[in-house]
Amino acid sequence: MVSTESRTFRVAVAGASGYAGGEFLRVAARHPALEVGTLTAHSNAGARLGALQPHLRSLADRVLEPTTPEALAGHDVVVLGLPHGASSEIAAQLPDDVLVLDLGADHRLVSAADWEQFYGSAHAGTWPYGLPELIHADGAGSVAGTQRDQLAGASRIAVPGCNVTAVTLGLQPGVAAGLVSPVDVVAVLANGYSGAGKSLKPHLLASEGLGSAVPYAVGGTHRHIPEIAQNLRTAGAPAVSISFTPTLVPMSRGILATVTARLAPGREDATAADVRAAWADAYSGEPFVELLPEGQWPTTAATLGANTALVQVALDAAAGRVVTVTAIDNLVKGTAGQAVQAMNLALGLPETAGLVTEGVAP
Amino acid sequence: MVSTESRTFRVAVAGASGYAGGEFLRVAARHPALEVGTLTAHSNAGARLGALQPHLRSLADRVLEPTTPEALAGHDVVVLGLPHGASSEIAAQLPDDVLVLDLGADHRLVSAADWEQFYGSAHAGTWPYGLPELIHADGAGSVAGTQRDQLAGASRIAVPGCNVTAVTLGLQPGVAAGLVSPVDVVAVLANGYSGAGKSLKPHLLASEGLGSAVPYAVGGTHRHIPEIAQNLRTAGAPAVSISFTPTLVPMSRGILATVTARLAPGREDATAADVRAAWADAYSGEPFVELLPEGQWPTTAATLGANTALVQVALDAAAGRVVTVTAIDNLVKGTAGQAVQAMNLALGLPETAGLVTEGVAP
Amino acid sequence: MVSTESRTFRVAVAGASGYAGGEFLRVAARHPALEVGTLTAHSNAGARLGALQPHLRSLADRVLEPTTPEALAGHDVVVLGLPHGASSEIAAQLPDDVLVLDLGADHRLVSAADWEQFYGSAHAGTWPYGLPELIHADGAGSVAGTQRDQLAGASRIAVPGCNVTAVTLGLQPGVAAGLVSPVDVVAVLANGYSGAGKSLKPHLLASEGLGSAVPYAVGGTHRHIPEIAQNLRTAGAPAVSISFTPTLVPMSRGILATVTARLAPGREDATAADVRAAWADAYSGEPFVELLPEGQWPTTAATLGANTALVQVALDAAAGRVVTVTAIDNLVKGTAGQAVQAMNLALGLPETAGLVTEGVAP
Amino acid sequence: MVSTESRTFRVAVAGASGYAGGEFLRVAARHPALEVGTLTAHSNAGARLGALQPHLRSLADRVLEPTTPEALAGHDVVVLGLPHGASSEIAAQLPDDVLVLDLGADHRLVSAADWEQFYGSAHAGTWPYGLPELIHADGAGSVAGTQRDQLAGASRIAVPGCNVTAVTLGLQPGVAAGLVSPVDVVAVLANGYSGAGKSLKPHLLASEGLGSAVPYAVGGTHRHIPEIAQNLRTAGAPAVSISFTPTLVPMSRGILATVTARLAPGREDATAADVRAAWADAYSGEPFVELLPEGQWPTTAATLGANTALVQVALDAAAGRVVTVTAIDNLVKGTAGQAVQAMNLALGLPETAGLVTEGVAP
Repeated sequence: MVSTESRTFRVAVAGASGYAGGEFLRVAARHPALEVGTLTAHSNAGARLGALQPHLRSLADRVLEPTTPEALAGHDVVVLGLPHGASSEIAAQLPDDVLVLDLGADHRLVSAADWEQFYGSAHAGTWPYGLPELIHADGAGSVAGTQRDQLAGASRIAVPGCNVTAVTLGLQPGVAAGLVSPVDVVAVLANGYSGAGKSLKPHLLASEGLGSAVPYAVGGTHRHIPEIAQNLRTAGAPAVSISFTPTLVPMSRGILATVTARLAPGREDATAADVRAAWADAYSGEPFVELLPEGQWPTTAATLGANTALVQVALDAAAGRVVTVTAIDNLVKGTAGQAVQAMNLALGLPETAGLVTEGVAP
Repeated sequence: MVSTESRTFRVAVAGASGYAGGEFLRVAARHPALEVGTLTAHSNAGARLGALQPHLRSLADRVLEPTTPEALAGHDVVVLGLPHGASSEIAAQLPDDVLVLDLGADHRLVSAADWEQFYGSAHAGTWPYGLPELIHADGAGSVAGTQRDQLAGASRIAVPGCNVTAVTLGLQPGVAAGLVSPVDVVAVLANGYSGAGKSLKPHLLASEGLGSAVPYAVGGTHRHIPEIAQNLRTAGAPAVSISFTPTLVPMSRGILATVTARLAPGREDATAADVRAAWADAYSGEPFVELLPEGQWPTTAATLGANTALVQVALDAAAGRVVTVTAIDNLVKGTAGQAVQAMNLALGLPETAGLVTEGVAP
Repeated sequence: MVSTESRTFRVAVAGASGYAGGEFLRVAARHPALEVGTLTAHSNAGARLGALQPHLRSLADRVLEPTTPEALAGHDVVVLGLPHGASSEIAAQLPDDVLVLDLGADHRLVSAADWEQFYGSAHAGTWPYGLPELIHADGAGSVAGTQRDQLAGASRIAVPGCNVTAVTLGLQPGVAAGLVSPVDVVAVLANGYSGAGKSLKPHLLASEGLGSAVPYAVGGTHRHIPEIAQNLRTAGAPAVSISFTPTLVPMSRGILATVTARLAPGREDATAADVRAAWADAYSGEPFVELLPEGQWPTTAATLGANTALVQVALDAAAGRVVTVTAIDNLVKGTAGQAVQAMNLALGLPETAGLVTEGVAP
Repeated sequence: MVSTESRTFRVAVAGASGYAGGEFLRVAARHPALEVGTLTAHSNAGARLGALQPHLRSLADRVLEPTTPEALAGHDVVVLGLPHGASSEIAAQLPDDVLVLDLGADHRLVSAADWEQFYGSAHAGTWPYGLPELIHADGAGSVAGTQRDQLAGASRIAVPGCNVTAVTLGLQPGVAAGLVSPVDVVAVLANGYSGAGKSLKPHLLASEGLGSAVPYAVGGTHRHIPEIAQNLRTAGAPAVSISFTPTLVPMSRGILATVTARLAPGREDATAADVRAAWADAYSGEPFVELLPEGQWPTTAATLGANTALVQVALDAAAGRVVTVTAIDNLVKGTAGQAVQAMNLALGLPETAGLVTEGVAP
């Protein structure tokens, strides 16, 4: 049974014709405290939403307006599902007392140098980071809290990247507990195509993707790398190095992140039970992150449409590595659901309002 | 925004480890007036639900009991997601004042002869048919109402077959309006694999299904044929003949039904506008069946996880046929969502309670 | 074991960066009597073939030239894998004594009126039609031969459309035998995405196609309709009408065509054995078209990469229709393999040279 | 153009109804020096091959015999596509002068201890290992040759595992050159479902696999691990440790192996050019293993049906790791094509006889 909230917040979505904006609307349409206001788009301004997002039946007759500060005015919440660069530009023109959720990368990184190296443009500044479960720790076993403590009352939130969410949630318990080394981490991901957005590129055609597995951004070039490192530092890592390889596989949604790390120096005698305990402790109270029972491994199908992250961990003693696997829906816990979760915290709503944990499977 | 109901109904699900039972639980977990009670299974009795339905996080720790009348006692609603034959056997042992929803075929057909011909066993009797949008008409343009009128207060409901739902919703407006002939109908369906259930058969392996299109039950043998004919008769057809061919295609969920019928004798001069008007009239007030704007064709992805049926119709004058295409999620509008919709009507709840119209797409 | 031919023919391919041209090259690379000469492209001129067709390892270092008559000169065979309109333009500039295979539609239709209605441009004239198994009959049971008789020594060949091939091969035996009516035929196809080519359109993205079934060109608008009708007339139909609906399903290659037709007037008492006999007779000697054993239905996976058409037929007496299902690989028997088969006949080579009947499955 | 051989070898296939046996037959049917003899099966004995392997048209009428030494007698080559344990049992009963190709694992491992640890049964002995490109080196830059030198005249060949082939080919150049460390290697693979065979297990159903990514054998338990280590030792590694995680993704065929390793101690200053040079040197003369041009990454689709391994390598200086990605078709270069390649060498045929390098794409 769901409960409802008494107060209603009016939300505008910029970039409502894209996958991130569309997914926010899918969740918002069933959120007990949200009322969907203005929807905007760039090249699709003037179109019916139903022509572009045919799955959003309850909003099908809405007409998209051009993305301007004026169109976005008069709302309690503004969601930006815009290309990198565009969100910081429009955000700068929005009032301070409106809650702005940026689904893009513009305000995620603390380090301007990281931003400039990976994005090649001027840094737009840093916003509170919208990953509620991010552990704040010193890496020596002392945990100060989670990122949700930073989100109450926030008026600007940088929603994390989808790959970043999967890798961070998979590995951070071990880092925070000082059990695994954040140096020489290796992450390989299986990614659904919706993560690449609606851009018309030859390698994103169905004819190319069906029946194939396709790596991209191999060799340390992916823009999510500095964001992962930033998170692991928050979780207690003094220094981070990570080999990160995403792979497109024939599914529309989902990320399965296999992340391995060596046992930390001095912890080489850790047992499988020690490892499991660290992960279990980290997530025991979390509503959306779940350590599966021993021996059961996550699948992306189990998270489809849900705000769930499913995590499993094992110790490969022969390899000297802890292996974690995390499954999320890249558009929900990886984007729009995460945004709603952070928004709930910022607005003082129950953290789980409007979010489901039941995936659409099989 | 969703609203809630004040009264709560306790529901038991027999066959909770299967796809139909699991999908009912997915919907029930978010229904404002349902409380999930006992869950039962056959060979999986004793197992945690989370081990078998890993996507249903909020119910993961429930333990499955054996399917017995005793286990199912003490509930307001009992859902039967059981093999053909098994549901009528257990249903006969349930009290009269409990609402029983049979997701299987046992009680759908009015004609015992049809049942015996297609199922090869004794007929268990007929229950009120759970397709609320089914039109009751005389085939000469006079519409008496819809099946929802029969469902208020019902204590037994036979939930329709998934293919049947798609074909009936696609074609019935033309039949009810006397515009198309119910004789020599041709239906070809693209079907997702979840429609075949969890049975372990070689042709249902992923290795066989991926990259392939696979017809089955070709040539008039499919058990859904008499049920379609029964529905079209309710919609006003004096006699029905239909060529029906389902085809497995590489998706987990979804039915795309292409159904064509000739213009009725005497209506050969009907225009495209006449055709469109008949369909628009039939579905103008329906919350879950939508005639798409002209020129936009349904896709199954747009219905994933939603209780929506998307319909489009065109007149192919050169071929002398009306062509309709209907998309549904076979497990939602084709099974569990339909069951909830009928249950809502039976219990006096709002017809849309607990059901969404937003699909999980892309 | 394969045998080789002594003489070698040099072949140029215009449009070598597209799917049709690429597939011709895949087959040509293993053809015992072909030597691959010049490869041309339009916007991709100057590129290495390996960058665009990474699967064609033996030709990876070839560089694409611009598509001009000069570049194509000096070959025995020229293959045109070009957009409609472009092939007739370049073909007009090629010498008469070169064998030209047009993989596009420009020269398929006999009727200029049909061409103008469905393609909206001036008709470029008609070439010998490259479907060797096309039956020439009078529709009263008298068969004059097949289209392969027309191909020996031809210097221009119009290679059939992929959907046309599947529908024609499925239905023509019944038409030629006078057993089924070519009026009120209904065809519904499950199509892989490679049939849509490499064009960058939103609905062809993997994110949109994965997990979905998507109809297109519904209601009598598809350009393959007049070509199917033309073939059925060749097979003996006095008049043809057909409802034709293609459906994109999540596979890269393959067409599964479900085609139904009524028993012909006067033949309503035909038995299942009569029907089977007509199909068995038609294809008993064919190397690439196979009527499967009774009860076994075609799947597209079984034809992947092969020049095979798998056909099955049943009589649905209750519906009064014969139902046929045909599976082909749209790029092989539907395009490039068919072109090679026709070329072999034109050049006096064994019809099967360079073609395989073993599909790449599972 | 292909050339043919004058002598013909008669081949029997045990396990012809399985995926490995079927794939061997697909290749054998077009091999210029092979004649397909007896086909055997276990539970499918007595069936037509066409009923079980409908894609193998040229062999469809062959009837499967029970797998016995008598049925396999009188052939030049016997191929064993049998479960682990079964192949060693039958192999022990075959004459010494017959070439036996074991597609299973029974005779791959040199170490009986490894065998017993990972397979839990008695070791059947070691056969010459059928990976022709396996480098024999001392790990200090001195290369003695490749495994193909061991295969001429062999009468028993243990064909490598599919995952093993992908990982070995991806990493061995760096190991042989002493450039990367074989300690703390991390391999994550995207795997098609045919690698799991035809066994009827719930997680192998299409309904479960479509739209999902599914890890298995995580944490150091996969049986291919000791075989990979054995190969890397042959390539010069003094000691090996590897974290190995396979992942089922929604494709029928293909392996994409992402393998990373640290730069070897003392080689931390190696440049990207040094890395590329090591891989280029290793594979410059190989007919089936190809280092792609810089910046182009392998996809599994490009290898479908071909005996090709496509390899790319990059240096991630920030992570201190070399990253390699290798794509193969698990049933061709991973199984049956590899077997034919090794057989060609054993029989003195051209190594490439009967094998293609052109994949069936898109």
